[in-house]
Amino acid sequence: MIVDIINKKRLGRALTYNELNYFFNGYLKGEVKDYQMSSLLMAICIRGMSDEEIFALTKIFIESGNVLDFSDIPGIKVDKHSTGGVGDKTTLVIAPIVASLGVPVVKMSGRGLGYTGGTIDKLESIPGFKIVLSDEEIIKQVKEIGVVVTGQTADLAPMDKVIYALRDVTGTVSSIPLIASSIMSKKIASGADKILIDIKVGKGALLKTKKDANKLSQLMIKIGKFYNREVRTIISDMDVPLGHAIGNSLEVLEAINILRGKEKKSNLVDLCIQLASEMVSMGKGITVEEATVLVKKSIKNLSAYDKFLEMIEYQGGNINEIKVNKKVQKIKSSKYGTIVGIDALEFGKLAVSLGAGRVNKEDTIDYGVGIYLEKLVGQKVRRGEVIAKIYSDVKLDQDFVENIFVIE
Amino acid sequence: MIVDIINKKRLGRALTYNELNYFFNGYLKGEVKDYQMSSLLMAICIRGMSDEEIFALTKIFIESGNVLDFSDIPGIKVDKHSTGGVGDKTTLVIAPIVASLGVPVVKMSGRGLGYTGGTIDKLESIPGFKIVLSDEEIIKQVKEIGVVVTGQTADLAPMDKVIYALRDVTGTVSSIPLIASSIMSKKIASGADKILIDIKVGKGALLKTKKDANKLSQLMIKIGKFYNREVRTIISDMDVPLGHAIGNSLEVLEAINILRGKEKKSNLVDLCIQLASEMVSMGKGITVEEATVLVKKSIKNLSAYDKFLEMIEYQGGNINEIKVNKKVQKIKSSKYGTIVGIDALEFGKLAVSLGAGRVNKEDTIDYGVGIYLEKLVGQKVRRGEVIAKIYSDVKLDQDFVENIFVIE
Repeated sequence: MIVDIINKKRLGRALTYNELNYFFNGYLKGEVKDYQMSSLLMAICIRGMSDEEIFALTKIFIESGNVLDFSDIPGIKVDKHSTGGVGDKTTLVIAPIVASLGVPVVKMSGRGLGYTGGTIDKLESIPGFKIVLSDEEIIKQVKEIGVVVTGQTADLAPMDKVIYALRDVTGTVSSIPLIASSIMSKKIASGADKILIDIKVGKGALLKTKKDANKLSQLMIKIGKFYNREVRTIISDMDVPLGHAIGNSLEVLEAINILRGKEKKSNLVDLCIQLASEMVSMGKGITVEEATVLVKKSIKNLSAYDKFLEMIEYQGGNINEIKVNKKVQKIKSSKYGTIVGIDALEFGKLAVSLGAGRVNKEDTIDYGVGIYLEKLVGQKVRRGEVIAKIYSDVKLDQDFVENIFVIE
Repeated sequence: MIVDIINKKRLGRALTYNELNYFFNGYLKGEVKDYQMSSLLMAICIRGMSDEEIFALTKIFIESGNVLDFSDIPGIKVDKHSTGGVGDKTTLVIAPIVASLGVPVVKMSGRGLGYTGGTIDKLESIPGFKIVLSDEEIIKQVKEIGVVVTGQTADLAPMDKVIYALRDVTGTVSSIPLIASSIMSKKIASGADKILIDIKVGKGALLKTKKDANKLSQLMIKIGKFYNREVRTIISDMDVPLGHAIGNSLEVLEAINILRGKEKKSNLVDLCIQLASEMVSMGKGITVEEATVLVKKSIKNLSAYDKFLEMIEYQGGNINEIKVNKKVQKIKSSKYGTIVGIDALEFGKLAVSLGAGRVNKEDTIDYGVGIYLEKLVGQKVRRGEVIAKIYSDVKLDQDFVENIFVIE
């Protein structure tokens, strides 16, 4: 039976709900072995899945755990997910913006693995900040202050967690049906009414082509329809890191800068406004244009920043104690020119090598290390001008880092 | 690196010798895990392999163990392999025929798994017969009597053994490149000068279509050329069981019947003459037609049977003590007609369920049980006439067994 199911998918035939359910739940029970699951996952990667199969798998993931119920919290709850990138601290900026405008935000975030960071790691760089909350604590907080950013509860689509760990080591990550059901199962189980997905595409993203991003987008919207959830997607660039900072404490400080109105122009600021506007539009049932006006105002009048401080304080964090690495190395441009590219993947890997991220799950993170890009794409640089700062005790090769910038 | 190799094959790109070598030897060392190997194997199943990849993998399999050297035995050593079928006892018949005509035969055979039987299991049904021989014993025997049929030595392409065990439980058996390199690595390592492959196709075979059989045939001939070994192939039918008997003792007795000239006409007899003639043709450098004359003569004048007895005695077996199950159930035809089909797969599975074969590797075999087909395809039957005998203490449903025959 187990091998029959694998063979069926190997030949490119669609599996039924019962077959998928038997196989995936059999895996949790230990009846289906790792090597059988990875064989099926590879067949799925190459042969694809029908819409019905994807709906079925999403259902199986959801039903492997609890589904959170926020129905007694007034208002339309809007969740947001990013497929992962380098320097992506958007959640830290937009959750308080959206909440400050009266749209409740319950955001469950993940940890980073490989060269993409995770919001939970960033928040943990704030001394005292509590990221493990019970369902009751989550509901209490969102009722009281309208916003909570927390780690995923253990009971949220737990099957997805074990399958993802296996995919990560078996070359079966890049399957659009598997990505779609993995993300959507968690988003649906976490109880939001409406969901915004930020699909990253480019060098520093899982998806390398616009075509794949479009496919994923369509699939997620379809899954949303199947579950009666409005899903919107944004496809955003990840050839270049988001904003200036890569590394946990540095990224939190950059988010604070934006919320304090100290930083008004970068790819990060633009994306934050775009994402927040979509969320507010969904939550309030207004147009994106109308929402954008509100979003910009909430930054300008600091109500978003106040909401941020309220949330951090509520969850026990103290932003005055955020520490960055004391030793800083300045990387200078060796020529005149304009920055036309900054390789997100290379800087992502570099940040991990400094200790800002994990190669293996059990690795610990050094919150204070990281990279600060003094200059972004489009900016002119003079010879000898500082283009990046490396927060690390390790001294890097100047030429190596400089060459991650493309200066013409 | 491990995941990069899997990803490369997932995308359908060819792996280099170094990549394959790193991955497969890493598996033996425990650095590559089961679930990573099965993922790669599935990608190979679906994406295929180039000729260069197949040559490389065959080489890696061969080099994982010893290569036997029979160069100091005079004459051209011809080996024969079957891809496996139901009721296939051809080796028991043709090894002595070929040896009796002065062509040395060193045949390493396998055990059965699933519905296909294994020559070694059949030989073990002869009380006293020794199937585990050292390299020295093998060489001594073939020098003295010109024929030896033995189990594979542990050192013969040991990597193939572990990979095959994994393929068996991960739906990755049906890959023509993997089948070709698995078989050819063992055949080349076992030291024969020339190799005859009997490729089975049909309901009771691994390969279901003539097209796949042709592909496998071409691939094996190519691998042979790469290793400077003449390879011939025969594609033979496996919709219908071979001969009358399915089950170990019963099959040995049927082979003896043919060698004693008691049974002159069946699909089994025809195939044995065809295979033996090809082997003699290869070994003596004569035409197949010339070889066929010699083969038929060696059966008629009992020189093949004498060689069979000599081999059995040399390896300690006593054919007078072969036991079949005492209880026998007769299956009768419920109508008049002609037998137009006998489902090999169904009878193969039935024989396993009686205890004649293994579902799992560790299962023990009951040598005496099995099925004897009294009537073969093309024969007329009367109502009430016995069409099969079931050697088992278990009573089977008459209708169920009768319906495995197609009578029109």
